[in-house]
Amino acid sequence: MPTATGHTTAIRASRVIGTTVYNPTGDKIGEVEDVILDKTSDTIKFAVVGFGGILGVGEKYHAVPWASLNYEDSQGGYVVPYSKEQLEAAPQDSIHELTKDDGMRAQTSAVSYYGAL
Amino acid sequence: MPTATGHTTAIRASRVIGTTVYNPTGDKIGEVEDVILDKTSDTIKFAVVGFGGILGVGEKYHAVPWASLNYEDSQGGYVVPYSKEQLEAAPQDSIHELTKDDGMRAQTSAVSYYGAL
Repeated sequence: MPTATGHTTAIRASRVIGTTVYNPTGDKIGEVEDVILDKTSDTIKFAVVGFGGILGVGEKYHAVPWASLNYEDSQGGYVVPYSKEQLEAAPQDSIHELTKDDGMRAQTSAVSYYGAL
Repeated sequence: MPTATGHTTAIRASRVIGTTVYNPTGDKIGEVEDVILDKTSDTIKFAVVGFGGILGVGEKYHAVPWASLNYEDSQGGYVVPYSKEQLEAAPQDSIHELTKDDGMRAQTSAVSYYGAL
């Protein structure tokens, strides 16, 4: 459905990947590393947000509920409704681990950590 | 849910993009150009499959139901359950047009063309 502001709700996965993620106070958290899709249903499992690390070395990845990423034109990136402290303490893992077991563990863990939106 | 063969159902969007698409008789149709996501819900709207064209010039894009793409290890690509003729006659457009109006027109048109899966 079109949004009230007339923005489209369709977005290309390739455009999402690499987009900067901010917290509500405008601190840069990291960027969208990937989006994990379900192979067999039309469902997005979660977004993978990477932060920390230099050129990918030591970078940690978080499974973040997809619907929590709200694109803000003014910032040119996504804003998530979590504080820096919440994000720093959030479950994190390698991307390989996040996508293991159908991504179910990471998804369950993200939903339980961030709560229902 | 894990599949019967133990394959994971989680897939990274970045791995999907660029993967070859075949029809059931093994003809190469094209490749996955992008995956169109809904910004506000955990829903995959459709996959964009590109075919024809040289280095992207003159290439045509099709909105194909995401759940119709079945990954076949033996072929190293996706197999869609449509004939070459069906695909050639399918609705096609530029990616820009496909994502306009929330992708709703393309999605409706794909669902109506390919039918419910």
